[in-house]
This record gives sequence, structure tokens and C-alpha cells, in this order.
Amino acid sequence: MSAPLLSVSRRIRQTPFSNRVTASGVKAYTVYNHMLLPSMFESVEADYRHLKTDVQVWDVACERQVEVRGPDAARLLQMLTPRDLGNMTEGQCYYTPMVDETGGMLNDPLTIKLADDRYWISIADSDLLYWIKGLVYGLGLVVDVDEPDVSPLAVQGPKADDLVARVFGETVRDIRFFRYAVLPFEGVDLLVARSGYSKQGGFEIYVDGSELGEPLWDALFQAGEDLNVRAGGPNVIERIESGLLSYGNDMTRENTPHECGLGKFCQTQTAIGCVGRDALLRVAVEGPVRQMRSLSIDGDRVPPCTEIWPVFAGGKRVGRITSAAWSPDFETNVAIGMMRVTHWDDGTRVEVETPEGMRQATVKEGSFI
Amino acid sequence: MSAPLLSVSRRIRQTPFSNRVTASGVKAYTVYNHMLLPSMFESVEADYRHLKTDVQVWDVACERQVEVRGPDAARLLQMLTPRDLGNMTEGQCYYTPMVDETGGMLNDPLTIKLADDRYWISIADSDLLYWIKGLVYGLGLVVDVDEPDVSPLAVQGPKADDLVARVFGETVRDIRFFRYAVLPFEGVDLLVARSGYSKQGGFEIYVDGSELGEPLWDALFQAGEDLNVRAGGPNVIERIESGLLSYGNDMTRENTPHECGLGKFCQTQTAIGCVGRDALLRVAVEGPVRQMRSLSIDGDRVPPCTEIWPVFAGGKRVGRITSAAWSPDFETNVAIGMMRVTHWDDGTRVEVETPEGMRQATVKEGSFI
Repeated sequence: MSAPLLSVSRRIRQTPFSNRVTASGVKAYTVYNHMLLPSMFESVEADYRHLKTDVQVWDVACERQVEVRGPDAARLLQMLTPRDLGNMTEGQCYYTPMVDETGGMLNDPLTIKLADDRYWISIADSDLLYWIKGLVYGLGLVVDVDEPDVSPLAVQGPKADDLVARVFGETVRDIRFFRYAVLPFEGVDLLVARSGYSKQGGFEIYVDGSELGEPLWDALFQAGEDLNVRAGGPNVIERIESGLLSYGNDMTRENTPHECGLGKFCQTQTAIGCVGRDALLRVAVEGPVRQMRSLSIDGDRVPPCTEIWPVFAGGKRVGRITSAAWSPDFETNVAIGMMRVTHWDDGTRVEVETPEGMRQATVKEGSFI
Repeated sequence: MSAPLLSVSRRIRQTPFSNRVTASGVKAYTVYNHMLLPSMFESVEADYRHLKTDVQVWDVACERQVEVRGPDAARLLQMLTPRDLGNMTEGQCYYTPMVDETGGMLNDPLTIKLADDRYWISIADSDLLYWIKGLVYGLGLVVDVDEPDVSPLAVQGPKADDLVARVFGETVRDIRFFRYAVLPFEGVDLLVARSGYSKQGGFEIYVDGSELGEPLWDALFQAGEDLNVRAGGPNVIERIESGLLSYGNDMTRENTPHECGLGKFCQTQTAIGCVGRDALLRVAVEGPVRQMRSLSIDGDRVPPCTEIWPVFAGGKRVGRITSAAWSPDFETNVAIGMMRVTHWDDGTRVEVETPEGMRQATVKEGSFI
């Protein structure tokens, strides 16, 4: 299917950056957490080339925060994830698979520790707030849970350090990966984290108060003119090359973190209190029977992957593809999918049933970049 | 803002009817419960005229079901809503405001009683499943909660009875408003309810199994050729004229059902067990200080309402508009918004701050149709 029009309404929320995004010539959006997420400016391939060369500013306000605050905050956070949060300190961001009582993925947010009794959970596309509110009510936990007026703005690309240093000072260069610093902008302390949904490097700035959105956008564009800064957004080609998963695309409530290749973020044995711990203990020891892999699909450019593409070997179903795009850099179709244990080794040849017919493909153990 | 393109991906789910919707020439979608919802075929005004004249088939698969089944099902359902479900019988559908512990709206679904221990909750645009799963886990309730493979297909318009009778038999004419019958299609029992998101009359057919989607679509179009049946979708003009609220547009978690004018669906005193009961008892007795109203906005066609438009009287803020569209039939801009008690009486003149400047407007106590 080619791209149709998106009908606008208040239900699909605008962001503090929407006016600037429009002025930057956005051509396409997706919808994420009931909010507009810009997905294309010049073209998907031109945006990709620019992201890998220069620096982009991304309106990722749709990465909404769930703020958890109160005496039971740490206990609640550990209930949500099989990642052991025991050693997490203020200033850290953890990628945290979040699961239900069956071990099924509900979201894969970044958890940010603000204080011993205060966290932001920077969510992927599902109303994790509802799950948390239900747990808190049902268990009578002493915490306040809400969505604050905080909107992340990402700066991504090889020149991101230079650009962010010009606005927030040279100290940003010292921020380590998945750590944050608290730095002032126009007199307001903002959390600046070295993170983001690409492998081109960069930061996510948590804009605390919508009124700061346009001033910060403008400051970045004024400071970055000679760096060729442009508006961008998460790029489907680059994120598949990078092996970055997308909740709702590559995994759903059907999948365990282990299937998703996120076992390294789970310490199920010691994550005592996690509601999915009982369900995950066995798979944590024995390993899953299918797991996420990168693949390259032979032949010409494949169409957008809008539903599961089955994967076969010797006529038997052995997996599925859930994300795919033509990669100009690797000169092949890059893809992400789930492969059975029998067919997940590096180099395994398989067949993918695309909407345009069967294609040969090769399983790849690591990501392309 | 004019309509941009929508980027497609698996995360924005297709429906069992998507192939037919595409073949019918869909021009625009919105996204609802992580799923495509067709919003325009010919044009919003041509679709509106046709809906009021003939009969349309709507892909409303995005009205996903939360199925609740087990010994605690009835108790759980009453926890979710201030509507008293004590007298609800099998065969009934109830419009049910669902609230959190503060009385804030989480969703406004149709609840369908399938049996004493089994319900479908046909949801508006929020992951109500997550709230329910959280409650169930936290309280240790004995129920199974899941999203089944059930996709509603709506048949709406003045000729809907004729069309549905041709496919399901004359008995459909006897189905009362917000009741359902169980009727076979190709050997499978389907729930056919007299309901739908318009005031033009019609049914919602709960397609139980994706494989039935295209056969049912085709059967309706074959049977309805001489009725001028067409593909359609919820129409923004008709729904505002009808005073039908949209969760996310007209109300959010900030609002109580009483503010939303849904007090008639709340029996807070007797809805014992509702988690929001304590918070709502006072407002249920005293009434809210602001409430949903229809309004007509003077002058030329207003742009799409994509964010709150403040409403003023004598220079003071007295309300807000959250939905608006030009109505060809009423030859004015019809709107829905929340007005303070001081300015909600029928005929009150106010001023609306639209993106194109201030406009005079008139409050209307009932809906336009």
C-alpha cells in the first residue's frame, strides 16, 4: 500500500515542536502514543543519508513520560521489569523490557532514575500508564503516577556532540552513553541524556514544559547552520540496519524479552518482585525457541512491511519478518524478524514470502551497523 | 494544518477489511487503537451526504474488544464504571464511561454482556486492556482478560435495516437499540447489535475471526448494489451534529463523566465497587462546574480543530472547543466543547478563539440531530 493521507484531529496530539516541524516541510507522519511523530522530510533515503552525514533534530515528544514518584516508586519499578534495578543510580538511563504476569512484552521504555523515589519511564507506543495505574490501585502502592508535560527532543547524527555543545556547553561531551546531565536552558534545568533511536550518536533533551519547545528548537537550528542541521525523525532504514526494535512492529504482548533478543537486559533470577518473574524463570535458563535476528533479503527493493511476512526453509515455516527496507549503504534489503532456533544461525539461507512473491534471504547474527 | 501523509508499518495494524477498503478508494485514515481507521473516501462532505441518504459499510475493526471471562467478571466490570450494571442482561449493550480512582475518564466503550461470566468491552482509543490487566493482577481477580480476534464492521445509514436484513434475515429489524442478536453468517454465529457511531441508524456486526472479514464485506456489497451501498467511516460532521463524543478529542483522563454530560449513564450511588465511586459521589450529587455542550460558530468554514480553542465571554475564559466542522445541512460550523456553568445555557453568546481569529458562537443545549 502506498502512503495515504492522515486525517488530523485533537485526538492525534500535536507537540510543542509541531509548528517548527511544519515550517521545516514535514511530508509524512506516523502516530505514536496518540501523538504525531514526523517520519519523513525530504525523502526516507535523503533523510537517511543526511542523518548519517550531518546532524538532525527530531521531534520525539511522542516518547511520553510516565512519572512515578513516592515511597513505593523503586518497588513498583522493579515489579515492571525483569531487569535488575538494584544497582541503578541517579543519572542513569536503563533500557527496560516491561512485561506482564505471563512474561509478555508490554513496552520497551527507557527508565530514567531522577531520585531514589522518582523515575521517568520514557515509553514506546502503548499506554503503559494504564498498566501501572492498575497495578498501583490494585496493590495499594504509595506512589503518584502521571504523564508530565515533558517532551523529548532528539539530536542525532555524527555532528550531534558539536551542536549540543554549542547550546548546552562543552560538558555534554563528557556525558556517557545512557547517562544524563542536568543542564540549564534559558534558566530551566533540563535533563540531557546520551541516547536516541539511532546508532549515529547523539542526545535526547527532555523538554520540561511545552513553552520551552520552540526556543530550544530555534536555538539548535541557529547554532547549527554551518553543521547543516535539519529536521528529521526516526529513520526506518537506519533503525533496521542498527537492529533497533520497534514495539508493535517487531514485538507485541505475544513475545518474551528473550525471544526479542533482550535477554541481556534481563536478570530474571535477581529481579525479585517482577510480576513476570515466575513466567520467565524457565525461559531465562533454557533460552527461547525463536529469537530476533537481522536478515538481508535478496533482489530489488521490497515494499513497506505492513504485516508479518512468513519465512520458510525447505517448505516449512521457520520464522517471520516484521520490518524491512532497502538499504542504499548495504545495497540489499535489510530486515528484522523472528527465527526458529533451527534456522537462526548466521548465514542460514531462507525464503521470505513478500507481497511481491518469494525472495531468498540470509540470516545475520548481529545487526548491520 | 492540511492533511499530511501517513507512513505505514506493521505497528499501525491493518484490519480484516483493509484490502477491500483499499479497493474502495480510501483517501485518508486516522489511527485508532494502533490500527487503521478509514476516515475519507470521496470527500468528507460527499461521504456525509451519502451517509445521510443511503447506506455505508464502515471498517471499525479498530473498536477492539477486551474480553473478560471468569468467575470475577461481573465484579470486575462494575469496578470499571459508575454505571450500575446490576440489571444488565445477556443480549444488552451498555454505553459505559470507565474511570480511574480519581473519577477521570479512561475510555468510553460499549460493554456487551455475552454471559454472566463473559463480557466484551468494545473500546475507544486507549489501551484499556492495560488498566484492566493491572487491576486484575493487583487484586488477584479470577478472570481471563485478552484481546480476541474480533473486528466490528458497521453498517450505517437510513437503508441499513434493508441491507442487513438481506444478509442476516428479516429478524434483524426486530433488534432493539443497544441490543444484539446472534445470527449465522457462512455457518458462524455472529453478534449483530443495533448500534454505531452515527445517528443515521444501523448495526455493528462483530466479525469473530479475521477470515470472515472479506466474505462479509463482499456479501454486503453484493446485496446492496441497488441501495447504493458504499464504503465509509465515522464522519466528523455527522458525529458533531449528533453530539457524539470522541475520547481523546472531547475528553481525556482530566474529565469526569459528569463534565462530559454522561451523568445519565452514571448511577454512582448504587454502582458499589466502582474504583472511582468515592471520587465521583460529590460531583454526582452537586453536579459539575463545566459540562459538554454543542455550539454553532458563526461565519465561514473553520479549519480542522487539532487543539483546544479557548472560549471567552466578556474577556473571561468560559470554556473550550475540542471538535468543529462546517455543516452543509445546518449551514453553520457545528462544534462540541466544554462550557462553564455560568455560560452553558441554551442560546448563550460567546467568542471562540480559532486559529483564524475570534468568532462569535452560540451555545446549544441539545445536539443538532
